[in-house]
Amino acid sequence: MSEGREVPLIVLGVGGVGRSFLEQIVRRRSYHEKRYDVRFKIVALADSTGAAVSPAGLTDEEIQQAIEAKAQGGRLSDLPFGYYQNDVRSIVDLEATQDTVVVDMTASTETMSALQLAMERRSYIVLANKLPLTAPISRAWALYEYPRLRYETTVGAALPVITTAKRLAASGESIQRIMGVLSGTLGYLMTAVEDGVAFSKAVLKAKELGYTEPDPREDLSGRDVARKGLILARTLGWRLEMEDVQVQSLYPEEWDTWPLEDVMAELIALDDDFFAWVDAARARHEALRYVAKLEDGRVEVGIQFVPLDSPLGRLRGTDNLVEFYTEYYDPQPLVLAGRGAGVHSTAAGVLSDILELVLYPWLP
Amino acid sequence: MSEGREVPLIVLGVGGVGRSFLEQIVRRRSYHEKRYDVRFKIVALADSTGAAVSPAGLTDEEIQQAIEAKAQGGRLSDLPFGYYQNDVRSIVDLEATQDTVVVDMTASTETMSALQLAMERRSYIVLANKLPLTAPISRAWALYEYPRLRYETTVGAALPVITTAKRLAASGESIQRIMGVLSGTLGYLMTAVEDGVAFSKAVLKAKELGYTEPDPREDLSGRDVARKGLILARTLGWRLEMEDVQVQSLYPEEWDTWPLEDVMAELIALDDDFFAWVDAARARHEALRYVAKLEDGRVEVGIQFVPLDSPLGRLRGTDNLVEFYTEYYDPQPLVLAGRGAGVHSTAAGVLSDILELVLYPWLP
Repeated sequence: MSEGREVPLIVLGVGGVGRSFLEQIVRRRSYHEKRYDVRFKIVALADSTGAAVSPAGLTDEEIQQAIEAKAQGGRLSDLPFGYYQNDVRSIVDLEATQDTVVVDMTASTETMSALQLAMERRSYIVLANKLPLTAPISRAWALYEYPRLRYETTVGAALPVITTAKRLAASGESIQRIMGVLSGTLGYLMTAVEDGVAFSKAVLKAKELGYTEPDPREDLSGRDVARKGLILARTLGWRLEMEDVQVQSLYPEEWDTWPLEDVMAELIALDDDFFAWVDAARARHEALRYVAKLEDGRVEVGIQFVPLDSPLGRLRGTDNLVEFYTEYYDPQPLVLAGRGAGVHSTAAGVLSDILELVLYPWLP
Repeated sequence: MSEGREVPLIVLGVGGVGRSFLEQIVRRRSYHEKRYDVRFKIVALADSTGAAVSPAGLTDEEIQQAIEAKAQGGRLSDLPFGYYQNDVRSIVDLEATQDTVVVDMTASTETMSALQLAMERRSYIVLANKLPLTAPISRAWALYEYPRLRYETTVGAALPVITTAKRLAASGESIQRIMGVLSGTLGYLMTAVEDGVAFSKAVLKAKELGYTEPDPREDLSGRDVARKGLILARTLGWRLEMEDVQVQSLYPEEWDTWPLEDVMAELIALDDDFFAWVDAARARHEALRYVAKLEDGRVEVGIQFVPLDSPLGRLRGTDNLVEFYTEYYDPQPLVLAGRGAGVHSTAAGVLSDILELVLYPWLP
């Protein structure tokens, strides 16, 4: 029986997404071998707690041990196998070849120089990490131009948003407008306020349900949506910097310096604005949405009124939804919708990216 | 200034899609050169009316002449340039290399041996033609396994249905069910009967609007939807034959042998069935849809009741819509929606397929 084509992986980031990814690698091993003749070999795991490097490949038992250790708050450097290597650039330097896939599932800016080296080595790269892609153009653009790189999960998790944008850009048809709800948290909040819930109550409830970041300002600032909008724009070839993205925060700027408990107590001051917005939208037969809008080379992120009977207007709850209006998708847009977050579907999307890279270019 | 990387194309089929494709190639030439450094060279045009072969590449003026001649019902063999070559296999034999893209936009089974030769040559292949992909497994399966082939537009035109199915299959998450409205014509008819229009009247109106094939039985038989369902199933790795697809025709089988005018006159006999279906659906708070359903290794094509508040239930008019229910898209599906037919968007999708093939595997 064939052992399959061996694909070495350097895995950066062993948080929630990284652990689900490792677990899926192990669980689907026989599927990937049987269906695609591909056998993944984890040559390194690394995160801010250290690294486990094993040029021969970690065994499935070792991978399980690493998952459990990290789930219990342990450190990779304490694992009883592999050898410790402090910096991810050195790991890439030691291990990466043309056949290696470097998978960045961190939320760190620290991986950039490792990624640059991986490009020099002509390694494959898969990013679930948005930060390298939202860095200044002088550093980030090389990533967008590198053909052996995928980053589908940085926008809408496993929804094929980037793939679709690339395909539309490739045909050359003109792209008139892209409108997307790219935050499940903000989608939930907009649905709640439309249903008559006070904004402050909706935020507390969302925090309780685990829909928000531990500090809800991360969501309410719109910064994360702005990053996704920028990645989408750059995918279309728009040379924009983060500062060019116009972002509407849902709270006053001065709250950025406040202690979290003061912010949570003061949210109630925003309720009337939202009641008024909902009323205004309703009077126009429109819906209130927090969207990223790409049009005429500009990215705007914030509250928008959209027609009630449009795909975005009909959206409810935490799903993401993206409308592409183009030369041929007119007047009805091309629409993608579904879960836009979650560790398991993000990890599955990373796996899809890897297989797309290693399978399709390959001539047996 | 760079001339760009030259990509030779062998174009089979110069009907509506083929002409739009050629027109887009010419119109977007500077875009493709500037953005992707790619210059398309048409080395052959061929269809059932002959061929124009030009190893040095047709000029844009010659391409325009071919478009106009074909639009006016002329024959490719009468064109005053290129040389005539009667059979497409010989054209591939003479012209196809590893760098060539063979683009099949016919609706013919006659291209199969040319495609087989193109695979031997390791040429790229893009199919808008469903028939090679729905041939018996013994002949078709090699196409599905060939990594340098794309066929996105065979299901839902430029909607990324195949891409999404491939990505989900690649990750290995279990795919529980796929439900799709894959015929704009049948979508239009279902919306009309839900609105209280008699089925026979709706068909006549759809024919008038040009939504149906010249013989509406092509649409009403469900055969075309069945082909799409089969292609989608095979994309998931399901080894099914056309005969395994369970298809519900919207008219009695004996009508297949009738003259068209008798069929059109007799449609009225079907009205009561549809009124009854609509009533039954309404009583269950459901909607009537003609769908392809993939579940448990089986493909069923026919009338289904779907929840009114599901994406398929909310669909109206001629757009296509596909719901993917998977391990991680549960309970809410991943949804793709938008125009699922039309010569321009199909041609644009073919262009996207070509660029995906020639760009991504390419290491500069």
